[in-house]
Amino acid sequence: MTVSRPWIGLIRVLTTDDPGVLGAHERLLRLAYPGLAVRTACIPDQPRGVHDEVSLAAAAPKVARLAGELAEGGAAAVIISCCADPGLELCRAAVSVPVIGAGRAAAAMALLPGGPVGVLGLTTEVPLPVVQVLGRALHRSAAPHGVRTTLDLMKADAMDACIKAARELRAAGARVILVACTGMSTAGVTARLRQELSLPVIDPVLAAGGAAITMLAHEGVIAGCAS
Amino acid sequence: MTVSRPWIGLIRVLTTDDPGVLGAHERLLRLAYPGLAVRTACIPDQPRGVHDEVSLAAAAPKVARLAGELAEGGAAAVIISCCADPGLELCRAAVSVPVIGAGRAAAAMALLPGGPVGVLGLTTEVPLPVVQVLGRALHRSAAPHGVRTTLDLMKADAMDACIKAARELRAAGARVILVACTGMSTAGVTARLRQELSLPVIDPVLAAGGAAITMLAHEGVIAGCAS
Repeated sequence: MTVSRPWIGLIRVLTTDDPGVLGAHERLLRLAYPGLAVRTACIPDQPRGVHDEVSLAAAAPKVARLAGELAEGGAAAVIISCCADPGLELCRAAVSVPVIGAGRAAAAMALLPGGPVGVLGLTTEVPLPVVQVLGRALHRSAAPHGVRTTLDLMKADAMDACIKAARELRAAGARVILVACTGMSTAGVTARLRQELSLPVIDPVLAAGGAAITMLAHEGVIAGCAS
Repeated sequence: MTVSRPWIGLIRVLTTDDPGVLGAHERLLRLAYPGLAVRTACIPDQPRGVHDEVSLAAAAPKVARLAGELAEGGAAAVIISCCADPGLELCRAAVSVPVIGAGRAAAAMALLPGGPVGVLGLTTEVPLPVVQVLGRALHRSAAPHGVRTTLDLMKADAMDACIKAARELRAAGARVILVACTGMSTAGVTARLRQELSLPVIDPVLAAGGAAITMLAHEGVIAGCAS
């Protein structure tokens, strides 16, 4: 008899058929939470991902459709791996399993240490779910100089620009850094910032994974452990 | 060679030498997060726990002292298993490992589903850390009729009183129920409310466990899985 382990569906909002790119967040989650079973899918026709109002609006119904397919296929929970949480409300109307938006999850986890939260993103415009959850804990935001899209994060000096921006947040009084771009998770920015800053640095992909595990634990569903 | 697994120190703010009572939250965490290594300790001289301003103030330095001992003994993180988070700031000044207050953790997790949060406690006075983290998401609070202390939760009609109070929160518009008393975790109230209410119900002990696992994952420390 085969007993299937509970698994989490992870939705990428970047269209790609490169398995390395597609599986990047799934790999981060499996490293951080050993034994966590994750299956990744991406929305169609958005090779540049979600980067403005138009692409956000376009993504929402696609994310909800994909969440429905993942839940129907047996996902115990669904993660939307984007800090703008595109389609989160539509997903919740469509499926009965927990749906975790990386934006809300990162903001919730950023409230744990206490103290003003500095938000590092691709732009200084903080994603709405992050604003809503942080409330008065939102201190200020910063963006790395010369980086406009997720793809720019792969450039040689992008890491230094991210570190510089995060240091500015710390100098301005932030006591927690929230990384509000899952592309920065892929690029290894979060891990590096922890070394450089000696402050709690919240990664949106890891936050979403921890939130999903916590919500499933409440339902008596055990995720995140090899059986 | 013995490789020691990372473990989480859990602080009870109720003084007891009954191993069943002392280990109650540890057992909940191990069930929900298999393989999680937890060691419990309790503060001295508070057989009635933390239940008012005076007992809260008395607990704070004791909790910080205990956190120091647990961290010195090798705890990878420390959980304060009380929704008033007694001594949280003192702990953070005293130790370098992550310290998770059950109050802040429950409130952070209650923000994940979105929507107004109803807080169920022993009194209608919402613990300060919960107020601070919930911000505008805090909808209203309720307390079970006839229940004044943790010990009252063991009485025959306490469960029904808790369910009734939670239903009132739902009727008043709450879309998430936050259980702001870890004694209700011990008494099995949270699990029962989930069955009765068909709403997300956040348990402070499980929330604290998930928060600790998430924070440790950020540091590259793997907790919550049998090795």
